[in-house]
Amino acid sequence: MSDLTGTWYISPTPFTDDGAVDPDSLRRIVDAAVAWGADGITILGVMGEVADLTAPERETVLSTIAAAAKGRIPFAVGCSAPAAAVVRANVARAVEQGAGAVMVAAPALLKDTDQIAGFYRAAVGDSPVPVIVQDEPAATGVTMPVSALLAALDAAGSTVVKLEDPPTPPKIGRLLAQRPDLTVFGGLGGVSAYSELRRGAAGTMTGFAYPEILKAIRVAFAAGDLARAAALNDRFLPYLVFEGQLKVGLGIRKEVLRRRGVLSTARTRALNPLPDPATIAELDDVLARVGLTPSFDALELA
Amino acid sequence: MSDLTGTWYISPTPFTDDGAVDPDSLRRIVDAAVAWGADGITILGVMGEVADLTAPERETVLSTIAAAAKGRIPFAVGCSAPAAAVVRANVARAVEQGAGAVMVAAPALLKDTDQIAGFYRAAVGDSPVPVIVQDEPAATGVTMPVSALLAALDAAGSTVVKLEDPPTPPKIGRLLAQRPDLTVFGGLGGVSAYSELRRGAAGTMTGFAYPEILKAIRVAFAAGDLARAAALNDRFLPYLVFEGQLKVGLGIRKEVLRRRGVLSTARTRALNPLPDPATIAELDDVLARVGLTPSFDALELA
Amino acid sequence: MSDLTGTWYISPTPFTDDGAVDPDSLRRIVDAAVAWGADGITILGVMGEVADLTAPERETVLSTIAAAAKGRIPFAVGCSAPAAAVVRANVARAVEQGAGAVMVAAPALLKDTDQIAGFYRAAVGDSPVPVIVQDEPAATGVTMPVSALLAALDAAGSTVVKLEDPPTPPKIGRLLAQRPDLTVFGGLGGVSAYSELRRGAAGTMTGFAYPEILKAIRVAFAAGDLARAAALNDRFLPYLVFEGQLKVGLGIRKEVLRRRGVLSTARTRALNPLPDPATIAELDDVLARVGLTPSFDALELA
Amino acid sequence: MSDLTGTWYISPTPFTDDGAVDPDSLRRIVDAAVAWGADGITILGVMGEVADLTAPERETVLSTIAAAAKGRIPFAVGCSAPAAAVVRANVARAVEQGAGAVMVAAPALLKDTDQIAGFYRAAVGDSPVPVIVQDEPAATGVTMPVSALLAALDAAGSTVVKLEDPPTPPKIGRLLAQRPDLTVFGGLGGVSAYSELRRGAAGTMTGFAYPEILKAIRVAFAAGDLARAAALNDRFLPYLVFEGQLKVGLGIRKEVLRRRGVLSTARTRALNPLPDPATIAELDDVLARVGLTPSFDALELA
Repeated sequence: MSDLTGTWYISPTPFTDDGAVDPDSLRRIVDAAVAWGADGITILGVMGEVADLTAPERETVLSTIAAAAKGRIPFAVGCSAPAAAVVRANVARAVEQGAGAVMVAAPALLKDTDQIAGFYRAAVGDSPVPVIVQDEPAATGVTMPVSALLAALDAAGSTVVKLEDPPTPPKIGRLLAQRPDLTVFGGLGGVSAYSELRRGAAGTMTGFAYPEILKAIRVAFAAGDLARAAALNDRFLPYLVFEGQLKVGLGIRKEVLRRRGVLSTARTRALNPLPDPATIAELDDVLARVGLTPSFDALELA
Repeated sequence: MSDLTGTWYISPTPFTDDGAVDPDSLRRIVDAAVAWGADGITILGVMGEVADLTAPERETVLSTIAAAAKGRIPFAVGCSAPAAAVVRANVARAVEQGAGAVMVAAPALLKDTDQIAGFYRAAVGDSPVPVIVQDEPAATGVTMPVSALLAALDAAGSTVVKLEDPPTPPKIGRLLAQRPDLTVFGGLGGVSAYSELRRGAAGTMTGFAYPEILKAIRVAFAAGDLARAAALNDRFLPYLVFEGQLKVGLGIRKEVLRRRGVLSTARTRALNPLPDPATIAELDDVLARVGLTPSFDALELA
Repeated sequence: MSDLTGTWYISPTPFTDDGAVDPDSLRRIVDAAVAWGADGITILGVMGEVADLTAPERETVLSTIAAAAKGRIPFAVGCSAPAAAVVRANVARAVEQGAGAVMVAAPALLKDTDQIAGFYRAAVGDSPVPVIVQDEPAATGVTMPVSALLAALDAAGSTVVKLEDPPTPPKIGRLLAQRPDLTVFGGLGGVSAYSELRRGAAGTMTGFAYPEILKAIRVAFAAGDLARAAALNDRFLPYLVFEGQLKVGLGIRKEVLRRRGVLSTARTRALNPLPDPATIAELDDVLARVGLTPSFDALELA
Repeated sequence: MSDLTGTWYISPTPFTDDGAVDPDSLRRIVDAAVAWGADGITILGVMGEVADLTAPERETVLSTIAAAAKGRIPFAVGCSAPAAAVVRANVARAVEQGAGAVMVAAPALLKDTDQIAGFYRAAVGDSPVPVIVQDEPAATGVTMPVSALLAALDAAGSTVVKLEDPPTPPKIGRLLAQRPDLTVFGGLGGVSAYSELRRGAAGTMTGFAYPEILKAIRVAFAAGDLARAAALNDRFLPYLVFEGQLKVGLGIRKEVLRRRGVLSTARTRALNPLPDPATIAELDDVLARVGLTPSFDALELA
């Protein structure tokens, strides 16, 4: 389980200008994650637009990342589906490709949360790799109370949770009060990264476009330098909040990754696939304000 | 467009005892639909547990039905997905296989209904076959007001709607008041079949396990014999309501189809894949009450 | 607790032609409930349009019913509110007026169901009269899994539940499997009254406009005459389903109560306060079909 | 309409230690709002815990604020209710007490957004004072697409909107693109205050505990000093984000107002009425980081 801690990077799914999945960019994502010092990569999550991929595209993402990551960095695979049988098929394929962990959210639009444990038991109760239980109310429409999360973890034989239910810091506190041995990853684009660490988070698992900043916050925090962790958080908060916006945030994130040389385009599969000019103008402004200019040198975070 | 009217049968996805998709039962479904006099078959819809199938299973359902239906009965294919690009891929494959129409619901959990028209335009604005706009709030979490439905129809170049937003009869009335030329199919398991016809529905498109009853109601209604249509509706209503229950209804439906010799098992992909003994006892009771005994002869409906 | 069983009648809130609360009709409702043999009256519930009343109007309903019911029939009062402090104020006033029980639903739009028990404890943990825990997902937006319902009952010191989460029969089964001593009322306009009794319901608490029919079903069932109970259910089912429609059902119910001489008008506080002509035509048709004509004599149910 | 612009302050409802509405603190709120230079006060909104007040408490808040504000500062009154008749009663009482405007959200849990315009017409189509159309999906469960908002504005005869649907900046852009003459207030605790202004917001209407900061941002922006507006935004953002948290944010806000000498206690009507120690520790930390210490002098913002 030691792999499952630290600063994990949730990979977007890159597209080419004509809208196809882009393997070259996928390989650059792995290179970048290694260079950023990420502790792992998570693919085919909500911000990987997994629901917007065909099955062959999903396979392309998985096999390309697996090949590029092999021996360099562990990766986890989002395997969520409404039926346990489909989760099982996704998990089997992920494991075949060398996944170090799988991530599973509650079935979308499930109303009876008493069914969550049974679902996890049937879906991943015998998973050969660690399971990350994902708390994702925005994408699933399902709010998991702490009692349901703990039941899901028990059913999955897991001790790892990734939270996206705002506000995450108090929920981390409630989880760890009941189960101090849990590994809890914060999410939500890192907007509350410092608060999450204060409440006991093991790290972040999110797709923020500057993972090295989240790592620097975590490393400073782990070293006991809370003032530095907070200062880093506060310095970059305007951009964390800007990228963390619902709906438009993914396009912003991809645009920044494009500027960083990782993606070929910022294209998403949303109705308006690229950020509009007003958003780009705001982005330029906020990046300049926090010093994330082209000359930004991650070394200053070290 | 003449195919798209009448009594369409929404096919379940049959599974074998060990949980695999069952091609033999799929072929029997086509035979049965023809024998029942259905005007068409719709596959890979919500009640076809489409969200609970892997991509290869989805393909098995499509190709098996296509081969069995060819030259005998038209079929429509559920092609819904959260992203227009995936809908397009689903549509293309359905058309290759000979689908007479495609059915598309709003993207799950979409909140901004102003985006619905753009979604339909991108997804099926150029569909080579007729598009059925599906109004499915329970499965999608999206309520479509009449204005959004009309915008979706325009964007899809379609005049065919299938409603599942209860109560359907007044919504049919509101739709036809604004657009009298629409073809509106009722749904919801046929529970309101007679009321829907009174409000102007062109027929039903649902998975009720005795489609010949829904057809007999429609034929009587079309012939102007409202008393007979109502009497048929009322006679079978206890079973219509029983099968029409949320969550447990699909297992009931499959059990009846099993008894009718269509499916090999009643198995679903829900957590509890078969109806429990209390439900089976209720089923036996209600079928006896309405006369849907093994000796039931559909000829009496003719 | 003996009062809290049987066939309880949920009272609508009657309005005059100019839209004011109508005390004369309120008094006639009590007279009618007594004449129908109802075991109690529940006021200020969802179908009493409680959310659509001002505070003085709420008080008018409470005091008028209390005065009319005194010594004749017990009454329960809906006391739901988002905050425990307001529930407590509502309960105190209801008890002052002689309420035999209070009914409380979960706070609207509550997402963390782990908070439900604490809410009930703070709101009615020390209620001087029995508490009915109301399971009302449509009106509150909150689905209560069985575990949360049981926690709410414990926190409220209650053993009485009223269900409105469809399908109610299996949920009754799940509740009683875990807690056989519960008193469970069915609801949802009586659409599943017979099935609810089969699963162990103590009766119904609903606003169906012919409570004597629900009572006759229950009495036959209690006497062991299941065939008669089922036959009554099936005979009147077309109207039960018609009145049970979401949104339009309340206006239908009030129109029938008007025809029965109980209400002065069918007026609701919805945007379109009266049933439209198409609905009235359907109503006339369905009432005739099931024999609920002006000459209908409840004695035939006895 | 000139009053309805600028930096409006949404008042919380203060409680005493024993949980009663606290008139002394209400009067201090008015004093503080005047001292902070707020352009108006809005009472009985979501963050005023309006749903958690009894009718007499609601009246206490209204009459106390009205008396204290008279001749000093305009005030707007939240008048939302599920039925138009109740909104009308609320509006009438607010106007009697001298309200300069009323604020009305969509009816909670409304699903058919085509009904929104009719609701506003019936509720406030003839309001004697300006109407603020409130877009509040979290509290109402209703997402209003831009088309519905514009229809509501037309029906209400209003040109003033207050947004709480994140992300607010692009929605401001979409609204003003279609209707450039609208007055759009940002909300959400001011978290996106600078971005909202960039997109054309007329100001903020929110309950952030340092309204003078939001005013300083707006004044700098209006003066064309975008750099200063952004710098103020960025400096205080850690606290804006911290106070802006869902659920726990109101208790934080009230604690800060208590420290500022405005409220007697931080008490809310939530289940846990006061911030817990971990939250207080975080609060102390973040306030120190952004310099909102007891010696903070608003003059530095001027």
